[in-house]
Amino acid sequence: MRRNDVEKTPLTLLGLGAMGTALARAWLAAGHPLTVWNRDPARAAALAAEGATVAGSAAEAVAANTLVVVCLLDDASVGEVLAGTGLEGKDVVNLTTSTPAQARTRADRARERGARYLDGGIMAVPPMIGVPDAGGYVFYSGSRELFDRHREALRVPAGTTYVGADAGFAALYDVALLSAMYGMFAGAAHAFALIRKEDIDPGTLAPLLADWLVAMAPSVHQTAGHLRSGDYTEGVVSGLAMQVAGTPTFLLTAEQQGVSTELLSPYFALMRRRLSETGGGEEGLTGVIDLLTN
Amino acid sequence: MRRNDVEKTPLTLLGLGAMGTALARAWLAAGHPLTVWNRDPARAAALAAEGATVAGSAAEAVAANTLVVVCLLDDASVGEVLAGTGLEGKDVVNLTTSTPAQARTRADRARERGARYLDGGIMAVPPMIGVPDAGGYVFYSGSRELFDRHREALRVPAGTTYVGADAGFAALYDVALLSAMYGMFAGAAHAFALIRKEDIDPGTLAPLLADWLVAMAPSVHQTAGHLRSGDYTEGVVSGLAMQVAGTPTFLLTAEQQGVSTELLSPYFALMRRRLSETGGGEEGLTGVIDLLTN
Ligand SMILES: NC(=O)c1ccc[n+]([C@@H]2O[C@H](COP(=O)([O-])OP(=O)(O)OC[C@H]3O[C@@H](n4cnc5c(N)ncnc54)[C@H](OP(=O)(O)O)[C@@H]3O)[C@@H](O)[C@H]2O)c1
Ligand SMILES: NC(=O)c1ccc[n+]([C@@H]2O[C@H](COP(=O)([O-])OP(=O)(O)OC[C@H]3O[C@@H](n4cnc5c(N)ncnc54)[C@H](OP(=O)(O)O)[C@@H]3O)[C@@H](O)[C@H]2O)c1
Repeated sequence: MRRNDVEKTPLTLLGLGAMGTALARAWLAAGHPLTVWNRDPARAAALAAEGATVAGSAAEAVAANTLVVVCLLDDASVGEVLAGTGLEGKDVVNLTTSTPAQARTRADRARERGARYLDGGIMAVPPMIGVPDAGGYVFYSGSRELFDRHREALRVPAGTTYVGADAGFAALYDVALLSAMYGMFAGAAHAFALIRKEDIDPGTLAPLLADWLVAMAPSVHQTAGHLRSGDYTEGVVSGLAMQVAGTPTFLLTAEQQGVSTELLSPYFALMRRRLSETGGGEEGLTGVIDLLTN
Repeated sequence: MRRNDVEKTPLTLLGLGAMGTALARAWLAAGHPLTVWNRDPARAAALAAEGATVAGSAAEAVAANTLVVVCLLDDASVGEVLAGTGLEGKDVVNLTTSTPAQARTRADRARERGARYLDGGIMAVPPMIGVPDAGGYVFYSGSRELFDRHREALRVPAGTTYVGADAGFAALYDVALLSAMYGMFAGAAHAFALIRKEDIDPGTLAPLLADWLVAMAPSVHQTAGHLRSGDYTEGVVSGLAMQVAGTPTFLLTAEQQGVSTELLSPYFALMRRRLSETGGGEEGLTGVIDLLTN
């Protein structure tokens, strides 16, 4: 489209799934010359009409530009696709969801092949990509040089948060936040299950639940303080002993409402174990974290 | 203290633990004539100096005023303490944490004895009591008449949210919100455990985690919409199939970081079960709730 924006960094994008397509559109809309490739060429057709250059192979796409963004299904597909390409001198940005170990290995391989490597963990869904106010962002880790050089292009699809030179950190932060989110979703599922058999509109519970979760989320700052200082009692109002004493009410209520306790019990079990192992009744809940790591 | 505030409703408070004491101070500070009783009389001494009338027995305390607030350890202690008192014509407000069934039974007993009954679930810790901006509030359910008549006194310690004539509903909302909170805490514990062995300051993760949880909390509105309509695909961006496909990355990352998956696995197992039982890959996560209730 805006072919006259010659100052915008040209780049290559491998992978045009739901996320890749959203990324492509954001870069095209911002005037970045974009070369795309997708295993199934049908998915590139619409983008060609929007101004993208469609490469005939991954190797051809990689050859087209220094900046190469990869957004494929998983780490295995990244390995397959990059295998046949010339990475020497390339700036590879891998936005494919990976584990930290996979990202580190990917970074090593790229380095061996003469490329700079930046790993990314996308904290957004496709409709948030290219929408500045949507709040989405990408964790980046690995080559700081690459990140700084391509900062302008990288901030087109979403906000950027660089979390360190260790290529595995972006994936680690990504997985950490999403894991915590699934915990919150599990808790919310239990809450909705509790009212299921009552004459209560879920739409009445939802705002109360959302506000409560929002109000309680900042407690992670206290947790971080505990982990830093090693003093798990700092600023604690409701001690572990009191909280453990309260758990039967939660379990009994679930039972009375015909709700399985499988999502609640594991955390309560760790609370009890921590209390019995340390006797730290004045501690908060931070000690549970010690029981999770071996 | 302000004995001249004669228009303020006089009331009785049974139970001067951490919460009862905070409640007492809030009412005294607001100028409500207050009669208190506690099993261990030592805890009443400080309050006497602050203007409270100390009753020699629970029966004497109950006899002193129409409005009787109870804040004891648990439902059993409420039963013991109220047993020897004259409840005829009393407005009993029970702020002791209970299960919904316990609250309903307590309401029945009170009615049988000629009292009105309102149950409360306190969504606050003692330091938030009597602090208007602290955001604490109390769920109330049961006698609407009682709630309306004593609204002014009830809103002194914290905000008030009336959730229905069913005496069990305050406890149910209370337990629902706190259960969801424990789910969120479990998720956050897992997140902190993931970074434990890395050179990452927990204080760097905390604000990212808090912001992410705050951003994701409003998804409960979508869940409520699904439960109302029965259409679990409404507005879903990341379908169940895609999310289930992503779970190995979370489990593998935990394993690589030496973190137990016991807090994550139960929810993931339900996600998988829902997908395999319904094939509803385009659904969101709402279907998990169906698997929790029998
Ligand atoms: N969608 C989201 O909400 C979201 C959010 C955050 C992060 N992400 C991450 O972004 C990445 C892409 O997600 P997506 O939503 O775009 O997934 P998707 O819609 O399923 O697309 C998958 C892409 O990977 C390609 N692919 C899969 N296996 C391949 C192989 N062996 N060789 C070559 N290409 C292969 C597919 O090509 P074909 O078209 O030829 O099948 C397609 O382009 C994933 O790592 C995902 O975790 C997604
Ligand atoms: N503290 C909080 O953060 C919080 C938050 C929300 C809700 N709540 C709820 O508020 C209620 C009170 O909590 P709390 O923090 O005040 O507890 P607490 O500090 O442990 O005090 C317990 C109170 O119950 C009394 N008690 C216990 N067993 C009794 C019995 N058999 N007969 C007579 N009195 C008995 C105690 O009297 P003695 O002094 O004689 O032992 C004391 O007054 C609980 O239901 C709690 O779940 C508390």
